[in-house]
Amino acid sequence: MPYNGPMVTVAILGATGYTGKELVRLLVRHPKISLALLTSEQYAGMAFPEVYPEFRTLADYRLEKLDVAAVADRADVAFLCLPHGKSAATADALLTIGVQVIDLSADFRLKSVRDYETWYDLPHPCPHRLPDAVYGLPELLPPGSLVGKSLVANPGCYPTSIALGLAPLLAEKAIALDSIICDSKSGTSGAGRSASVTQLFAEVNNNFYAYKIASHRHTPEIEQTLSALAGTPLRVQFTPHLLPVSRGILSTLYVRPHSAWTPETLRDLYTRFYAGKPFVRVLPIGHFPTLQSVVMTNFCDIGLTYDSRTGAIVVVSAIDNLTKGASGQAIQNLNLMFGWDETLGLR
Amino acid sequence: MPYNGPMVTVAILGATGYTGKELVRLLVRHPKISLALLTSEQYAGMAFPEVYPEFRTLADYRLEKLDVAAVADRADVAFLCLPHGKSAATADALLTIGVQVIDLSADFRLKSVRDYETWYDLPHPCPHRLPDAVYGLPELLPPGSLVGKSLVANPGCYPTSIALGLAPLLAEKAIALDSIICDSKSGTSGAGRSASVTQLFAEVNNNFYAYKIASHRHTPEIEQTLSALAGTPLRVQFTPHLLPVSRGILSTLYVRPHSAWTPETLRDLYTRFYAGKPFVRVLPIGHFPTLQSVVMTNFCDIGLTYDSRTGAIVVVSAIDNLTKGASGQAIQNLNLMFGWDETLGLR
Amino acid sequence: MPYNGPMVTVAILGATGYTGKELVRLLVRHPKISLALLTSEQYAGMAFPEVYPEFRTLADYRLEKLDVAAVADRADVAFLCLPHGKSAATADALLTIGVQVIDLSADFRLKSVRDYETWYDLPHPCPHRLPDAVYGLPELLPPGSLVGKSLVANPGCYPTSIALGLAPLLAEKAIALDSIICDSKSGTSGAGRSASVTQLFAEVNNNFYAYKIASHRHTPEIEQTLSALAGTPLRVQFTPHLLPVSRGILSTLYVRPHSAWTPETLRDLYTRFYAGKPFVRVLPIGHFPTLQSVVMTNFCDIGLTYDSRTGAIVVVSAIDNLTKGASGQAIQNLNLMFGWDETLGLR
Amino acid sequence: MPYNGPMVTVAILGATGYTGKELVRLLVRHPKISLALLTSEQYAGMAFPEVYPEFRTLADYRLEKLDVAAVADRADVAFLCLPHGKSAATADALLTIGVQVIDLSADFRLKSVRDYETWYDLPHPCPHRLPDAVYGLPELLPPGSLVGKSLVANPGCYPTSIALGLAPLLAEKAIALDSIICDSKSGTSGAGRSASVTQLFAEVNNNFYAYKIASHRHTPEIEQTLSALAGTPLRVQFTPHLLPVSRGILSTLYVRPHSAWTPETLRDLYTRFYAGKPFVRVLPIGHFPTLQSVVMTNFCDIGLTYDSRTGAIVVVSAIDNLTKGASGQAIQNLNLMFGWDETLGLR
Repeated sequence: MPYNGPMVTVAILGATGYTGKELVRLLVRHPKISLALLTSEQYAGMAFPEVYPEFRTLADYRLEKLDVAAVADRADVAFLCLPHGKSAATADALLTIGVQVIDLSADFRLKSVRDYETWYDLPHPCPHRLPDAVYGLPELLPPGSLVGKSLVANPGCYPTSIALGLAPLLAEKAIALDSIICDSKSGTSGAGRSASVTQLFAEVNNNFYAYKIASHRHTPEIEQTLSALAGTPLRVQFTPHLLPVSRGILSTLYVRPHSAWTPETLRDLYTRFYAGKPFVRVLPIGHFPTLQSVVMTNFCDIGLTYDSRTGAIVVVSAIDNLTKGASGQAIQNLNLMFGWDETLGLR
Repeated sequence: MPYNGPMVTVAILGATGYTGKELVRLLVRHPKISLALLTSEQYAGMAFPEVYPEFRTLADYRLEKLDVAAVADRADVAFLCLPHGKSAATADALLTIGVQVIDLSADFRLKSVRDYETWYDLPHPCPHRLPDAVYGLPELLPPGSLVGKSLVANPGCYPTSIALGLAPLLAEKAIALDSIICDSKSGTSGAGRSASVTQLFAEVNNNFYAYKIASHRHTPEIEQTLSALAGTPLRVQFTPHLLPVSRGILSTLYVRPHSAWTPETLRDLYTRFYAGKPFVRVLPIGHFPTLQSVVMTNFCDIGLTYDSRTGAIVVVSAIDNLTKGASGQAIQNLNLMFGWDETLGLR
Repeated sequence: MPYNGPMVTVAILGATGYTGKELVRLLVRHPKISLALLTSEQYAGMAFPEVYPEFRTLADYRLEKLDVAAVADRADVAFLCLPHGKSAATADALLTIGVQVIDLSADFRLKSVRDYETWYDLPHPCPHRLPDAVYGLPELLPPGSLVGKSLVANPGCYPTSIALGLAPLLAEKAIALDSIICDSKSGTSGAGRSASVTQLFAEVNNNFYAYKIASHRHTPEIEQTLSALAGTPLRVQFTPHLLPVSRGILSTLYVRPHSAWTPETLRDLYTRFYAGKPFVRVLPIGHFPTLQSVVMTNFCDIGLTYDSRTGAIVVVSAIDNLTKGASGQAIQNLNLMFGWDETLGLR
Repeated sequence: MPYNGPMVTVAILGATGYTGKELVRLLVRHPKISLALLTSEQYAGMAFPEVYPEFRTLADYRLEKLDVAAVADRADVAFLCLPHGKSAATADALLTIGVQVIDLSADFRLKSVRDYETWYDLPHPCPHRLPDAVYGLPELLPPGSLVGKSLVANPGCYPTSIALGLAPLLAEKAIALDSIICDSKSGTSGAGRSASVTQLFAEVNNNFYAYKIASHRHTPEIEQTLSALAGTPLRVQFTPHLLPVSRGILSTLYVRPHSAWTPETLRDLYTRFYAGKPFVRVLPIGHFPTLQSVVMTNFCDIGLTYDSRTGAIVVVSAIDNLTKGASGQAIQNLNLMFGWDETLGLR
């Protein structure tokens, strides 16, 4: 028996990229949300299933060009799947006429305008909205933080996997802050759906490599979250790699604790920290996550150990980059903005 | 102890596509060929290993813009890995100043200008050279056919796999000519190395589909070869599919014989037909080819059976689309043009 | 607001193979079914998520050894994911004590004991139940056929893709019955989840091949369904191939019609035939199915054309071998046995 | 013109595993080696191409059961691709009757019997031969070290990739020895070719995970080599991961230097250290290795940088686990044992 109450209407701006598609996949099953509007500059006028045939009979929307007034007319909330640097202006216009915004771009993630301008090599497109933006990583926010908020900056995929993997240790002040190494591996959908030679099947298949070593734009976002948890600025060594899979991020995290742990005490810390968080699964001792366990879900699976030979802690966290790392988390944020169960439409 | 005689010098025009790269891979090990010149319009000025790092220390050539006079100056033979419609003009210019040409494009494959213009939707770029072009499928040519020739039209990948799979039956006049069904499956390198959404890893991985059903441009080329073998015009039903692999073509071929066969009599026909052909391996009865057995080789593996329940013959042939289906066969043709052992540089 | 009526309780026997896992995936979300019991001989005593960690917190069942009385005690219906030859005896015992059975093995699919014994090389394990078994391909059954039935033989994966692809033409008596060629390609999950060298990643990756040419056990099942549609016995040429993908079957089907068609008349025939069938999507003219569009769904997508050059019809159908080709169809059958909407739990 | 001098005859013991197959692939083209004998317990009596059809007409050997006397009779050198714990006894017997041995198992890699017994959980099968065994990582041995040697312990795949990646820094005493983190990712062929559920295509495809965290058996081998370079015992944090590719290992290595570097000074250190080593390619500044560049070759590609933000050095090294990580390196060792050019048969 479906829900019969009033529905929240939403628009997806930039619906034909991979994060837009993932939003459609999840929202067509959400019991309290009605999909009002999909936009696409490139495919406007076409039906959504002409771009993604799997949605035939499931989401037969006509794609429209982005028109802020039309969005305001028909939607309570807009998900922005637009390029960074461009997303903020649309967000600003929507907010001005009363549409709530969940922005999946990087435009409102960094609190520091200077960091944004350094790492994205652009003037910040909308600094006056920054103070209103909530960085929407729900498991690290106090309960109720998102209720009624009008602008949510949806976190990046790598930062989500890393922040969830290390938060308990940082909150506990348990580790040397100059010791953090984040070795992350991502599927190719993270690169988006635009024509490219490096992303051709014949270039990615059977291949694997690190990229943007010591220079990836998610670095300041990771550091911002971890510094806040630690209560003091810190830096991380972050290396992303490209995996020959379509979806998923697995981060292997190395830190040096101030004192010795056991696998049991370590796991206890994590299960306490994530008590009541339905999307974080702290695995039993001796178990570590696999991509296959989290792909197409909003879960973050975490496994961890203390290596008594070396004195290091190794944490492995895994998410689906398009779900918990983007669109699933965006819906989780929307659920929380409206005071609903955060798992609605996500299990 | 390497060969010490005079080397034939060759140029590869369009060296940074996948067929150009495959030529480089094979030619750096060829005992009688010296690579004189690689051209690329897009990457001119760069070193070849900047495009393909696997060739660092193996093929440190500087890529040059195409200049017909420079080619003539430095090379005896040119391999043309240029787009159809454009390749012919370059071939014409090179032939005029005495460079032998092996053209990997489709421009000189079809004997009928009308077929070319119908299927490629272009005026034929160089009809006056057509009579000089030899269609270089060596296993189907009389011995010596290529010696001293100056223009070889190198066959397409699908046509090679299909013609070798069916030639013995057609030459034997053993089958109903209106019964030929060719269900072919190709890896993605056949689509070339240009930016594309449909060829993105995330679009091809875990996927499979038929394309250009009843309308693929290799159809008239397949029909030209099979008709010549049959001694009368025929048509085929040809369906290409895209496999999530980088390299390889496997064709499953269905024909209706005039009379009953046994697997033994059928295999005898094929082993006789391909006696002395080092690159065709007719498999034992009950064995059928796999892509893995032919990838990175110049072999065409063939397995076949007669189905006594239905009265049909099923033939399966497999090649590497970049080797026997393109660059390996081009080198085999060059070997034969110079009267050398056809396997030189190819085993 | 979830459904609050009485739930039908079900058991999955053989829950740790791929079809069992797919049943769990679908049933945990089914609004009217309660999962009562999972059995596994190999993993009995373990928790289901120890075998498949993705189900942690979603399906934390303890796996039990199969005990017919316990099943009868706790479940109204049993899904049998057991090996052919062994499944029938369990089905028989369950039926005797009043449990309804949906058998995913081959034991009750063939109406002819002789065909079973010829192709499966076994004495039929339970011929006396054969007359009660309904072959559960819902789109080809008269409405209401399954209501109240106690034994459903769930179709094979290849037969499902082929029967749905050809049914309209056969029912229309539109084609030559000796002309049917079925070239099918399947992902590896069809081979099940048992230790094997041929199914190792390093053997399947980058590979592709045909297998069991003219001898696959699904042949008589395909012929049984198509013969019934045609109203006369017929034979098909069926060639299965192994694709390097985890899930999905795509069948390319070739038939010779008695007279000429157009793509439009052909598509009309199919849309009429499948009117009101929510899981068959007849694609627009010029569109053909992809695996990616059906994987993880219960859809069968069909594209087709008439080739006026050759006079042949080419039909392409695609399903997920584990969903529409096995467990999804099994749930669709259960929905129909209980007189529910057939899409319940499947969209 | 082929080499006409006397050939060294070799046997491959355990020829049907992946390292045995790779030896065959390379040795059939080696100008000074004649393949005398292939053994396989499982497939004895069959032709090698019945196991690996790609070798039809290229390596039509009959597989034999292992018989030490027959090996001694027909081969000068034996490559042992046998399980650890069993390989040593065969090596011992062969050495006693005068056959030179290159052992690809782990039995003679660790100098410390105690380390072997701790990590492999077995009594050492042949401690008296340990003093004669040379650990064959050629780039780290003084010139001439292998000439005339009779027992070479061929290094493990992970240890090769890590030792070559870190050797220059350790030899230079440039880094904190308690700071070494080795995050390695391997293709599946490293797990060998035996029936297994975890290595099934459907389990590995689209998947990725870490395994044997803080407990992999290659750890003491890595530490033995790095400690020798450092001149003092050290420990490493080593995490292997399973990649969904068939071949290749990429290791991302993190160390903390005693003082600041620049990318230039760092690269200079490496190019000096590896001067004259044909199989190590130190990439230009800003370039990092890809698996695709080394697969099917004996190269180890190394890229590296100094991160001035964090003060860490990041090194990435890539090899083919079956070539430089096993069989290619074994042939390189054989070349050096006989005083030949180490690249013979390997380019």
